[in-house]
Amino acid sequence: MTLGTPAVPAAASSINLAERLSRFSELWMPKKIADLNDYEVKITKLKGEFIWHTHEDTDELFIVISGLLTIQLRDGDVTLAPGELYVVPRGVEHCPRADEETAILLLEPAGVANTGDAGGERTAVLETLR
Amino acid sequence: MTLGTPAVPAAASSINLAERLSRFSELWMPKKIADLNDYEVKITKLKGEFIWHTHEDTDELFIVISGLLTIQLRDGDVTLAPGELYVVPRGVEHCPRADEETAILLLEPAGVANTGDAGGERTAVLETLR
Repeated sequence: MTLGTPAVPAAASSINLAERLSRFSELWMPKKIADLNDYEVKITKLKGEFIWHTHEDTDELFIVISGLLTIQLRDGDVTLAPGELYVVPRGVEHCPRADEETAILLLEPAGVANTGDAGGERTAVLETLR
Repeated sequence: MTLGTPAVPAAASSINLAERLSRFSELWMPKKIADLNDYEVKITKLKGEFIWHTHEDTDELFIVISGLLTIQLRDGDVTLAPGELYVVPRGVEHCPRADEETAILLLEPAGVANTGDAGGERTAVLETLR
């Protein structure tokens, strides 16, 4: 853009989940792909087991895109195949696990850490994929 | 449940989008399938053209599950295939259209009418699918 030229807004376009997923390979590192008011739409690749943690102030929506996600809860497991979703209620301790590489969409308020109350070395810095 | 027997919470289980979609056939009538804090996760079947309307106070997330969705905007169209999403920003007039039967997931704050500021006979009463 030349100095003084008005910015031309880019034409609106869709966000393709497979295309966004093709742009990274790190596991357990959520990437923001869209904002929805003060919520963030994120995608993540998972394999193995995360850590037990709780989000005291918010529910958390998981939608599985590919693979198989087990959300371990203290009362039992919830297993999600592609096209399945689950909302972990606020205050409920959980630990995601994926025995094969799995891709998910996450939706929760902006600023929620992936490790919730647990913190620690697996806390991710959120990157945005535009 | 026998009177006096404590309620036993149902085991947590996933929500399968295809199963929920198989339970209704009406078009343009969103069904709530989950709550996320004060937001609602909804699914809808669409075919044909909706009406031009605006949500002045909220963004609106569309994710296409099957079919093909065109979100008409005054500046041009956004077309979404399965696995694609788009957030209509608050205050942006839009008119969804689907030339073939299309199933979508919608996410927005509770209480948002499908017809936004336009109102009228196509305003849906939200039903919940459990």
